Amino acid sequence: MGLHLYDLAGAQVERRFSPYCWRAKLALAHKGLVFDTVPWRFTDKDAIAFSGQGRVPVLVDGDRIVFDSWTIATYLEDAYPDRPSLFRGDGGRAATRFINAWADTVVNGGIARLIITDVFAVLDEKDRSYFRESREKRFGVTLEAVVADRDTRVAGFRQSLEPLRAVLGAQPYLGGEMPLYADYAVFGSFQWARCASPFQLLTPGDPVWAWRNRLLAAFDGLAQKAPGYPV
Amino acid sequence: MGLHLYDLAGAQVERRFSPYCWRAKLALAHKGLVFDTVPWRFTDKDAIAFSGQGRVPVLVDGDRIVFDSWTIATYLEDAYPDRPSLFRGDGGRAATRFINAWADTVVNGGIARLIITDVFAVLDEKDRSYFRESREKRFGVTLEAVVADRDTRVAGFRQSLEPLRAVLGAQPYLGGEMPLYADYAVFGSFQWARCASPFQLLTPGDPVWAWRNRLLAAFDGLAQKAPGYPV
Repeated sequence: MGLHLYDLAGAQVERRFSPYCWRAKLALAHKGLVFDTVPWRFTDKDAIAFSGQGRVPVLVDGDRIVFDSWTIATYLEDAYPDRPSLFRGDGGRAATRFINAWADTVVNGGIARLIITDVFAVLDEKDRSYFRESREKRFGVTLEAVVADRDTRVAGFRQSLEPLRAVLGAQPYLGGEMPLYADYAVFGSFQWARCASPFQLLTPGDPVWAWRNRLLAAFDGLAQKAPGYPV
Repeated sequence: MGLHLYDLAGAQVERRFSPYCWRAKLALAHKGLVFDTVPWRFTDKDAIAFSGQGRVPVLVDGDRIVFDSWTIATYLEDAYPDRPSLFRGDGGRAATRFINAWADTVVNGGIARLIITDVFAVLDEKDRSYFRESREKRFGVTLEAVVADRDTRVAGFRQSLEPLRAVLGAQPYLGGEMPLYADYAVFGSFQWARCASPFQLLTPGDPVWAWRNRLLAAFDGLAQKAPGYPV
C-alpha cells in the first residue's frame, strides 16, 4: 500500500522535470505524507493504463487512483483533512483554481517558448520523437524555431509575471504568510525550467527570484536537491 | 454617520466608471451594507484631502476613513465578520490578492489600451486636461495613439483572459459556486468599460461574457442599472 506517484523522468532517471508532477510532490510534502515516486517516460503509456488515461502525475493511494495535478491536490485536501491545509478554506480552493489556470497558460506557456529545446535535450531517447512531433504540431514550427530569440523575448516573459511580483511585494507567499497550493502551482513551472534548462528565467533582485529560493528550500530542500541547474 | 463612498463620476453625474470604485460598491453590496455614494471628479482633490491622499474610492464608515480598493475590501471583511464573507477564509484572502493584482495589471491595462479615448470622452470638462496629461505621460503617446488598431488588438486582449475563461469553464464564479471579492476585483474592470465605452470587449459564447452577465444582474442589478453601454 502507501502512496506512489508516477513521475516524469528524463534520460537520467533522477531528472524529474514535469511541472505538474512537481505540484503533486509539493502537495504531498505539504500534507506531510510519505510517498515514493515511480519514474515514467512519455511513451510508457502501458505503465499507467490502469488509470484510464495517459499522462502523469498519477497518484496511487492504496486502492485509490487519482490523476491530473489539480484533482490530486483536491483529493489530498479532502482525504487528509487533519493534515495542513493546501487551500485554507473554500474561498482559497476556489481562488487557487484561477492561480493554477494562470500558471498553466501564462507561466507554462511562456516558459515553454524559452526552454523547449532544453527539455527535449534531457529526454530519454525513446521519448524524443514523440515529444518533438507532438510539440511541433502544437506550436506549428520546429522546436528550434520556438526558442529563437529567447534572449530578447525573456523580457516579455518577466513582464508577464507582474501580478505575481505585485503580490510578493506585499506578502511572502501567494498563500500569505505561508506557502499553500497556489505557490506550488506556480513554482512547479519554475522547477520544470530549473530541472531541464540552464537558461536564466529570473534575475536576482526580482521578488519572484527570492520567492522561488524560499520554495526551493522548503521541505528540507525537496526541490533544491532535485538534479537540475543552479539558476 | 452611515457609510459613504467617494465615487468617480463623469460629466453626467450618474456615470460612475472607476473599476476600483466598482470593486468597493460590490463589496459593500456583498456585505449587505447600506451606503451612499458621493460623486467625485479627478480634480476634486480638496474634497478627499481628509483621507490624506488624492484618489478614490474613499470609504467613510462613521469615524473610520479607508482608501484603496483592496484595503477597503479587507476592512469590510474584518469590520463586518458576521456578514457574508468576501474571501471565505484566510487562504481565500491571500489567493484573492493575486487575482486582484492580475486584474490591476492584465485586465485594467489591457482594457485601458482599448477604451482610453472613450473614458476621456465621458469625463467632466474640468477633469479632461488632467486626465489627458497624466495618461499620455504614462503611455508615452497620445490617447488617440494608445487605442489605434484596437479592432485588431482586441483579439490579444481576449486571449489574455484565458486563465479566467478556463476557471469559468469549471465553476460559475472565481469564488466557486457563489461570487466573492475575486469576482468583483475582475468584474470592476469590465464594468469600467461598460460605463464608459461602446467598444465591444467580449463576444457572446465566451464563458467570460456569461459570467459578466451574471454579475451585472447581482444585487438586484446594481451594475446593470448603472448608466453605460449595453455591450
